[in-house]
Amino acid sequence: MNSISIEQLPIGIFDSGVGGLTVYRALHDRLPNERFIYLGDTARVPYGTKSLATVERYAIENSQFLASRGIKMLVVACNTASALALPKIREKIGLDVVGVIGPGGRKAVELTKGDLHARIGVIATEATVASNAYFEAIRRASDTAEVLQSGCPLFVPLAEENWVNEPETFSIAAKYLARMKEFAPDALVLGCTHYPILREVIQRTVGENVMLVDSGEATAEEVARLLMDKGLQNPIEHIGKRTLCDDLDHFYVTDAADRFARVAERFLGTKPSKLEAIEVYGIDELRKS
Amino acid sequence: MNSISIEQLPIGIFDSGVGGLTVYRALHDRLPNERFIYLGDTARVPYGTKSLATVERYAIENSQFLASRGIKMLVVACNTASALALPKIREKIGLDVVGVIGPGGRKAVELTKGDLHARIGVIATEATVASNAYFEAIRRASDTAEVLQSGCPLFVPLAEENWVNEPETFSIAAKYLARMKEFAPDALVLGCTHYPILREVIQRTVGENVMLVDSGEATAEEVARLLMDKGLQNPIEHIGKRTLCDDLDHFYVTDAADRFARVAERFLGTKPSKLEAIEVYGIDELRKS
Repeated sequence: MNSISIEQLPIGIFDSGVGGLTVYRALHDRLPNERFIYLGDTARVPYGTKSLATVERYAIENSQFLASRGIKMLVVACNTASALALPKIREKIGLDVVGVIGPGGRKAVELTKGDLHARIGVIATEATVASNAYFEAIRRASDTAEVLQSGCPLFVPLAEENWVNEPETFSIAAKYLARMKEFAPDALVLGCTHYPILREVIQRTVGENVMLVDSGEATAEEVARLLMDKGLQNPIEHIGKRTLCDDLDHFYVTDAADRFARVAERFLGTKPSKLEAIEVYGIDELRKS
Repeated sequence: MNSISIEQLPIGIFDSGVGGLTVYRALHDRLPNERFIYLGDTARVPYGTKSLATVERYAIENSQFLASRGIKMLVVACNTASALALPKIREKIGLDVVGVIGPGGRKAVELTKGDLHARIGVIATEATVASNAYFEAIRRASDTAEVLQSGCPLFVPLAEENWVNEPETFSIAAKYLARMKEFAPDALVLGCTHYPILREVIQRTVGENVMLVDSGEATAEEVARLLMDKGLQNPIEHIGKRTLCDDLDHFYVTDAADRFARVAERFLGTKPSKLEAIEVYGIDELRKS
């Protein structure tokens, strides 16, 4: 058996489903030398309506599955899991773990820095808003920024329908974002992995002068910095040879691989070449049935 | 311990989540003497995007949980589980099992009977449409009815948002139902438990002359008939003393009871007085963690 150095190991990414592919894309673009293992927990999606205990349990099972495949770092692409389960995940696995909320919140503060009266908006699922995690991440980076958070529940199904140009989507966005527009944020955090798909609708609704923060992009920057700090960059040169979803990246789902491939194609313009349906949970229970 | 006759046992109902409450309401209205145990599998909702094997497994776990509480009959309120898992459920539990698809399909044929060229529309989730279960149920009742099925993925989140009067909902309905309107059905089956919430929007979109079939109501009629045929009606007189969600009915969810109670209030105008969060799966796995 050939030994492989830790730097050559892939980076693990998990999400509750398909939305985390926007985070995968951001990581792939920013880190062309790195390989990725992505796990979409499609058997138990969505997490946004589930309780703390359940989200923690699912997040730990996903993390342990990825850790068992051999990874050098873990990215929690799911906003809900990032908001609720990071401490428990860090407790259970001996790896660097990066969530999307800290980087997203910090990036917003960075973009508005110098302005003591910066106004930062956050749009996310209801669960993420209720967790207050973005508010706290922003507060840690700035004592003075004013923050307005707003839930946009229909944005996820609209993105999955790929209704990125429909008048109904603009109309729903105008309704959800009315208070946000009035608040007139300097920066607006897209606090859900699906929202970058609706980026144009959101930008046109809140106005061209609002800086949109894609938490996935902010996370990719943070992962790049962390790899450098720790000397964990992959020494193997892939620049210029990689494409999204090529066979250096491995995708796992806990259910319904065909639907995942279909939505992946809508989101990324291409299907994963290596896609496998697996079970990360209930081994004992499966044996019984 | 007092013994209780089988007639006095409650009827079990399970759904993937909160949508099945429209079926509960229909049963409660039709059968005022009966008590109900409702299980909403909110930890694993939705089923519509999951695979056959997974839906079967979840459905069996839910059925076994309800059977273990003592029920005299099982209603599968979830359209996806009714479409995919009825044979497996019947194999595993020794009780009468009623799904929503057979009754919904038969009711549509009954309403259009006498017309050899009846046109029957079905709207449902994409998974239910893909399963073809409604088409087959209608075909079993009529060799000649013309059938058009159509998926309406955004109707579920719109119903959960309670956007029953918003112009966006009308606009989305007009888009989803354009082909259906052209097809000009005599009867239109609401093939998803959430759709009765949007009944008015749907009726106004397809036209007042189209007969809407609520699968939940059709199922309640079938359950009433079955109870009578088998002599299983509850002999205890409750007529006039029951209200929706009173303490004769027991509600269980597999997660996030507070959200369930909130949506229940939107759907039924009242919260369950007896609501409990439980685990129906992964006992061994829970013990490990």
